Amino acid sequence: MECFDTHIHSEGKGITELKEMSDNSIKFAVSCAYYPIKPTNGYTLIDMFRKISSFEVERGSKVGIKIIPAVGVHPRCICDEWKKAVEWIEENGKIIGEIGLEIASDEEIKVLLEQLKLAKELELPCIVHTPRKNKKKITDKILDTLKKSGIDSELVVVDHVNLEIVEKVLNEGYWAGLTVQPGKLNVEDVLLIVEKFGFDRFVLNSDTGFNDLDCLTVAKSVKALEEKFSKFDVKKVAIENGKKIFKVI
Amino acid sequence: MECFDTHIHSEGKGITELKEMSDNSIKFAVSCAYYPIKPTNGYTLIDMFRKISSFEVERGSKVGIKIIPAVGVHPRCICDEWKKAVEWIEENGKIIGEIGLEIASDEEIKVLLEQLKLAKELELPCIVHTPRKNKKKITDKILDTLKKSGIDSELVVVDHVNLEIVEKVLNEGYWAGLTVQPGKLNVEDVLLIVEKFGFDRFVLNSDTGFNDLDCLTVAKSVKALEEKFSKFDVKKVAIENGKKIFKVI
Repeated sequence: MECFDTHIHSEGKGITELKEMSDNSIKFAVSCAYYPIKPTNGYTLIDMFRKISSFEVERGSKVGIKIIPAVGVHPRCICDEWKKAVEWIEENGKIIGEIGLEIASDEEIKVLLEQLKLAKELELPCIVHTPRKNKKKITDKILDTLKKSGIDSELVVVDHVNLEIVEKVLNEGYWAGLTVQPGKLNVEDVLLIVEKFGFDRFVLNSDTGFNDLDCLTVAKSVKALEEKFSKFDVKKVAIENGKKIFKVI
Repeated sequence: MECFDTHIHSEGKGITELKEMSDNSIKFAVSCAYYPIKPTNGYTLIDMFRKISSFEVERGSKVGIKIIPAVGVHPRCICDEWKKAVEWIEENGKIIGEIGLEIASDEEIKVLLEQLKLAKELELPCIVHTPRKNKKKITDKILDTLKKSGIDSELVVVDHVNLEIVEKVLNEGYWAGLTVQPGKLNVEDVLLIVEKFGFDRFVLNSDTGFNDLDCLTVAKSVKALEEKFSKFDVKKVAIENGKKIFKVI
């Protein structure tokens, strides 16, 4: 079954790794903006957005992956002149991501809110990162900020959900991203979650990128799901929900 | 035999590709600064230099490659506030590269000269790119600029040399970089060149990075050299010359 990895950082992957993903049926991937060290200036973000939106898309096409760029100011990438980066997004962005909160400082909340308001205004889908540390508490602040922005919940994927926060995220009407990687979810967690909450509101991703994480976890999860559930259901989380949210034709 | 790939762009390689290099005896690599689309501002270069000098070094160490950072303003990366990037190099650089000329515009020559003067002043080794197009003519301009800067020829690797320019580069006392990749040299070219000019003034590299080029060409070249020449000689181009130039302990 063709798969959609809805959250990668393709910049950190070599071409042979992208090819391996493609060879293992991952044919669509959202490549999210992220700079692996704290940048000094918004220009670095803008050039990174430009790179993802052109060079990375082209690199994907060489190996048969449709790379869909997401541009946004990640909470760990807030820097001087980050507003210039948001202006670039306003003019050029189609998907806003990866945004979110890491420690939920006032500055992080401000940067997130500004980008969510932009997403609401321009009706752009968003990928919202939830952190590893203090996940429950900080997710509450994310949900508050989402509400405050007034954004339509259909535009929002709350990402890296786990058993602790998944129900709340779904109850507030958002999409939920299931990130399969060590330290986040494993394949068994995914099976448990969809068994309990169904297939309609989830997307799968690996968050693979600059690190040494397995880049095939979406394909592996889909295989495991296929052994237990109907093709009709599995297809939703494997590809269809992602295509719908991110308007992929 | 342990090998030193003296010119890569590790940022474009995934961790499994770096591991493949390490597993194939490439234990040292200079990672050169380059941004794969034309950046808008010097801050992008500075953050890229910072990334190569920290994050990339760490990534290499995870798979057993000593990554040695080279920072410089590549002729295709000249942008607003490039001088800020040169100031960063002045404060933090240990090796200057990849610098050079692409079309030899006045601006390119100015940026190259400024960096060569800095290298002379700080006694830093330099990696100087020669282009594919009009290679002979533009290399002449590079050699003029090198002379004009007054830099000690022992500090300079003129890179991507071919049969057309190698003799002139050696005659002027520079080190010469043999880049083994499609469109540059193949293994047979390397054999021919060292047979004619000896092993004392050459280093090997792949220039592998953001593209889909084979990352093992240095290891493959060394194997081919070992079949034909003495270990003593091969070792010079495989590792020793590089360690000497780039002061690797």
